[in-house]
Amino acid sequence: MARTAPDDGHGTLLPSWRPGVTRDALVAFLDASSELPPERRLACFDNDGTLWAERPTYAQLDFFVDALGRRAEADPLLADRAEYAALLTGDTAALGELGLSRVAMALVELFDGQAPEAFTAEVRDFMSRADHATLRRPLRSALYLPMLELLDALRERGFTISVVTGGGTEFVRAVSSELYGVPPELVVGTAITYAYARDARGRPTLRRSAQLDGRPNEAEVKVSNIQAQLGRAPVLAAGNSGGDREMLEWATSGAGPSLALLVDHDDADREFAYVSAAATVAETEPVTDVARTLGWTVASMRRDWATVFPS
Amino acid sequence: MARTAPDDGHGTLLPSWRPGVTRDALVAFLDASSELPPERRLACFDNDGTLWAERPTYAQLDFFVDALGRRAEADPLLADRAEYAALLTGDTAALGELGLSRVAMALVELFDGQAPEAFTAEVRDFMSRADHATLRRPLRSALYLPMLELLDALRERGFTISVVTGGGTEFVRAVSSELYGVPPELVVGTAITYAYARDARGRPTLRRSAQLDGRPNEAEVKVSNIQAQLGRAPVLAAGNSGGDREMLEWATSGAGPSLALLVDHDDADREFAYVSAAATVAETEPVTDVARTLGWTVASMRRDWATVFPS
Repeated sequence: MARTAPDDGHGTLLPSWRPGVTRDALVAFLDASSELPPERRLACFDNDGTLWAERPTYAQLDFFVDALGRRAEADPLLADRAEYAALLTGDTAALGELGLSRVAMALVELFDGQAPEAFTAEVRDFMSRADHATLRRPLRSALYLPMLELLDALRERGFTISVVTGGGTEFVRAVSSELYGVPPELVVGTAITYAYARDARGRPTLRRSAQLDGRPNEAEVKVSNIQAQLGRAPVLAAGNSGGDREMLEWATSGAGPSLALLVDHDDADREFAYVSAAATVAETEPVTDVARTLGWTVASMRRDWATVFPS
Repeated sequence: MARTAPDDGHGTLLPSWRPGVTRDALVAFLDASSELPPERRLACFDNDGTLWAERPTYAQLDFFVDALGRRAEADPLLADRAEYAALLTGDTAALGELGLSRVAMALVELFDGQAPEAFTAEVRDFMSRADHATLRRPLRSALYLPMLELLDALRERGFTISVVTGGGTEFVRAVSSELYGVPPELVVGTAITYAYARDARGRPTLRRSAQLDGRPNEAEVKVSNIQAQLGRAPVLAAGNSGGDREMLEWATSGAGPSLALLVDHDDADREFAYVSAAATVAETEPVTDVARTLGWTVASMRRDWATVFPS
């Protein structure tokens, strides 16, 4: 790992961040955070595109398609369903016509009735063997090293770290401890409901349903769900897209030190270069423009990160 | 504090627990828990009647009535509403006729539109000054010392401790760190929903609603909510009533060491003596009979606790 950060009085703090205004802003926040009472030291991180790569496809979609493939081998009739047929043949035109939300709910149905621990085991199996489509590394290592260093620096300063994802809560929980050191109760995501029943021996059991518990965890829903699950507002929030906007604004709306951090994917050589819109629904303004207007700290992958991925 | 536990090779472990089968069962579980992988070390504790006293009235009801009294001074018209009139005059016949659920929802309405941090501050103010009705001690110290020692012993063994309460999530969260060392994300209770909006300066805000988010956190709902919020099953669950039954059964239905602990309120001299029914709805079988049938560990307050409250 390249250690390019000079000795600026902070030793080897954030070694994968290049010197500059972004690193200065992070170090200033870390220093100032000692003013905050311990119970306010909560930092919320989006996952896809903020802690791990989200291109060319979401890791959760890769997992779903892999699971679908294995189920379709055992039950070829599955391929008769329009959503599954489009996924199995990679028919992007058909997928576009069906729409992401209908396709996603069809995929959630694949796990209807599954015990939560079986779902977790299936995710862990996939993540232990899957490679990223283009980055020539295991999917589980397509994580951003500079962000992992930031998690560590925050933890050393008494912060609680939460992953606040638009992805499935239980999908991310299956790997959050191993990848980020974040226990399952600190993953806030899109949740499904559970069906409670007693088994043949009379013991309580839970099974996954195919229904969402509330709305997908994006935009203002992230704010409500953080309060509901974690019971307080963050003073640091990091994201990379319009779905993180309200969470970042919320983190910086209280008194005292706070930080909103936006990861800008502008590095086609080492990762990807793409523009995220400011909102999850049709809005053409790039989220980086919102960041400028609101005074967020922008991490340019190309400019600010000496190293992108762990070795 | 009386240290009556003999040196049984466990030093001063659980000093307020008298020697006997109950303490032996706890010590055996603590020893065996080292076999469990760290991620399975989750212990869930009911609150009312398990960690703190629930008689003669729930602490949350005391808080609500106190808040109602202060609001009725400022706005005498409040007393015209049947639920509030019955509470303000202590008319138990009228309260019985109205029903607990209607009265409770009327009380939740008192806080409709309040910011979450204002609600937390109001709870903390109350808990800092309220005395228990009969125990001659502050409400915040009507906690069971033997249970606090058990929390500590579990924490020393790498356990995550969660408070799983039928009470309001945000009410318990306001004091859970101070009283139990349990951070807000580890309180699972009866939740209200939040309304998201932007304030006059365009910043995101959350306000309490008067609607419950799902069903009250009792019985099988406790099991579903633990999975939804904490992402795994406990291996130890402690409770004192029918509302805890499913949670205790769930904790002991997996493989490996587990423990279901029932607190039996059989000490009229030092606390209260009362029988809890096996279910939250009308069922006459005492929950202690269920404990015998299912092999739970029963903590008799009279027999097993050398000391009940902290000094």
